[in-house]
Amino acid sequence: MIKHSATLAVNEKIAARRAAGQTVVHLGFGEAGLPVLPAVADVLRAAADQNAYGPVLGSASARQAAAGYFDRRDLPTDAGQIIFAPGSKALLYGVLAALPGDLVLPTPSWVTYAAQAALTGKRTIPVPIPADAGGVPDPAQLEAALHTARANGADPKILVLTLPDNPTGTAAGADLVKQVTELAAREDLVILSDEIYRELTHHPEDHVSPAALLPERTVVTSGLSKSMALGGWRIGFARIPDGPLGTTLTDHLIGIASEVWSSLAMPMQAAAEYVLSEPAEVTDRITRSRHLHAAVAHAVHDIFRSAGATCRTPNAAFYLYPDLEPLRPQLESAGITTAEQLSTHLLDQHGVAVLAGSHFGDDPSAYRFRVATSLLYGSTDDQRIQALAADDPAGLPWIAAQLDQLRQGLHQLT
Amino acid sequence: MIKHSATLAVNEKIAARRAAGQTVVHLGFGEAGLPVLPAVADVLRAAADQNAYGPVLGSASARQAAAGYFDRRDLPTDAGQIIFAPGSKALLYGVLAALPGDLVLPTPSWVTYAAQAALTGKRTIPVPIPADAGGVPDPAQLEAALHTARANGADPKILVLTLPDNPTGTAAGADLVKQVTELAAREDLVILSDEIYRELTHHPEDHVSPAALLPERTVVTSGLSKSMALGGWRIGFARIPDGPLGTTLTDHLIGIASEVWSSLAMPMQAAAEYVLSEPAEVTDRITRSRHLHAAVAHAVHDIFRSAGATCRTPNAAFYLYPDLEPLRPQLESAGITTAEQLSTHLLDQHGVAVLAGSHFGDDPSAYRFRVATSLLYGSTDDQRIQALAADDPAGLPWIAAQLDQLRQGLHQLT
Repeated sequence: MIKHSATLAVNEKIAARRAAGQTVVHLGFGEAGLPVLPAVADVLRAAADQNAYGPVLGSASARQAAAGYFDRRDLPTDAGQIIFAPGSKALLYGVLAALPGDLVLPTPSWVTYAAQAALTGKRTIPVPIPADAGGVPDPAQLEAALHTARANGADPKILVLTLPDNPTGTAAGADLVKQVTELAAREDLVILSDEIYRELTHHPEDHVSPAALLPERTVVTSGLSKSMALGGWRIGFARIPDGPLGTTLTDHLIGIASEVWSSLAMPMQAAAEYVLSEPAEVTDRITRSRHLHAAVAHAVHDIFRSAGATCRTPNAAFYLYPDLEPLRPQLESAGITTAEQLSTHLLDQHGVAVLAGSHFGDDPSAYRFRVATSLLYGSTDDQRIQALAADDPAGLPWIAAQLDQLRQGLHQLT
Repeated sequence: MIKHSATLAVNEKIAARRAAGQTVVHLGFGEAGLPVLPAVADVLRAAADQNAYGPVLGSASARQAAAGYFDRRDLPTDAGQIIFAPGSKALLYGVLAALPGDLVLPTPSWVTYAAQAALTGKRTIPVPIPADAGGVPDPAQLEAALHTARANGADPKILVLTLPDNPTGTAAGADLVKQVTELAAREDLVILSDEIYRELTHHPEDHVSPAALLPERTVVTSGLSKSMALGGWRIGFARIPDGPLGTTLTDHLIGIASEVWSSLAMPMQAAAEYVLSEPAEVTDRITRSRHLHAAVAHAVHDIFRSAGATCRTPNAAFYLYPDLEPLRPQLESAGITTAEQLSTHLLDQHGVAVLAGSHFGDDPSAYRFRVATSLLYGSTDDQRIQALAADDPAGLPWIAAQLDQLRQGLHQLT
């Protein structure tokens, strides 16, 4: 059975605790934590009369806008290569349902890939991430893992990359992406490149998409949930490669989309078209969001490092993936031997909610967990808008207070 | 490969012909053909600031509203039994992916069920519909078909009923529903009752849901695409049975929903909550829609009967399923031997677009096809609103003109 997505489940659990009056530092859920940009809300309102069934892949104008988005990022794209859906999850599912073969996953990785592999009857071949960054498999281990998998009867054909990465909050550098892409080409893998956090890379000019390196065999998925904080609107899109593989895949995706979700709701397509045409209001908002996410993630990173954790330095999105291995003696003497026990302890004893690494496919006995820093910006839209405008958001009193609670909680572990 | 849904494909084809300046009597697509009710558009606009990821199954208030909708129809329902999704298609898919066993389908039936069965790795066991109505298998043939299927290694466990029915535009009567439900109970089948057209039964008080007869083993799916003409908003909901089967199914559905589409977009949940609370504006609109759909479907039925077709008398939704078997000599002498050839001939020679019965699983050599009458109401919202208000909508000049083109096209066949 496919279980309730762990990331969504923890969010619902915390909402219940807060409703019961408890103070929780919510680091458990990857929601962008910001209000709707008013100009985007206006576009949705103006589209409220659009009730006709739309084309399965998206309206011509929305697809054109998405093609423009990729064009401006040095990925020349025809509107015919674009597909919209109610969330990028639906597109990831569709691609996995359409493509043959098993799935190679960097580990840890976002909870949904492995669950979708199970749903579509695929095996999962996990490969650890390197020390530099998450979202890609360690190149030195990838080749060996493929050979072992094939020897065991698996048929690895699809490689998921998360660029930038959830859960580690890191963007693999150009060299690493190049190495992994070349290896994928040699091994005849299709790359499924989840780039939903692309706009939130701290230095966006550093982003390298495998679609630029292996254009005929890379599918890029994205959406507006992260960059525009529109998770509740469910707007996803994908760029299908040009060429024979892309043509066949598109035919499959039309079938799956038309029989599972029909199309993205038309008012949402209007909103997507506006955002992806990238007017100044949108790019300004994304620039401010990027600054806020980076500032708070770095502040939280400092706290974890001060508490004795090791942790990759964040350079994208709004996540950290700390490892409390250096605290093993203290944790074991407190009876904590798994990431799940550690996360339960942090929530019950210190009001700090994180998501155990085991949910991301990591070793359950490692003291690793995902920290999402994007729900610290405030409990009202007014606070969140102040956080967006602040040069030093971590110094705002309501954010500083949560960082203090976190600092104290971690201190008490040691 | 799962092909592009035939109903959506014909719609896109006709849009292209019209864009090229051709006059097409569009009877090919089951869209309700009416504008958004202004009060509903206002609710969507007011919800444009709702961007948080919602609960997977739907917000508490939307689920409560849907429970109330069923309560008012003598199906006592707890909000915990409700799940929302981006369209009822997604829920039908989810239920098929969650439940074990193969699928029993009345034939002809809506194109999506068989495609979803293929997508979820299920066999399809077709059973012809009776002479009285579509949407249910012929009770006399159902039992035999189950035994044959089992003898052939299939494992029939789920029975789809479409109440009222697409493609026939008929609602099975109470006796027929009772007979089929009793048979399903004896044969240990779960009933998946697609009731998306329920509000458009010409005499809604006659509707009988199998959920009232076999409460612990009936899943009801519905949505706002038909009754409220909101196909482009993608709002679906389901009523899961109370009891052990329902509890297990809900756990599965939470998993599938959370990994494929996350949740229905929150602004759409707000719209659903409003509609399902059934304020007077909504019930008035549905009453007017029902009258319009019935009047035009009956007018088109008369035309087919006059042309020599046999056809069930419509009593729900906005469909007819004529059979031109009485015209076989003329059609064969014109070289037309299949439903697909007939529908191509009607479109190319007479500008009449219908969907061949073969798309609904019917015998390809039968001269049967689905006629959707809901896109005749006008080409502007102004015309459609006049049609809604008219006592005799078939007499409005723009509707009468299309009926004339249809009458002449059919006349030329004979």
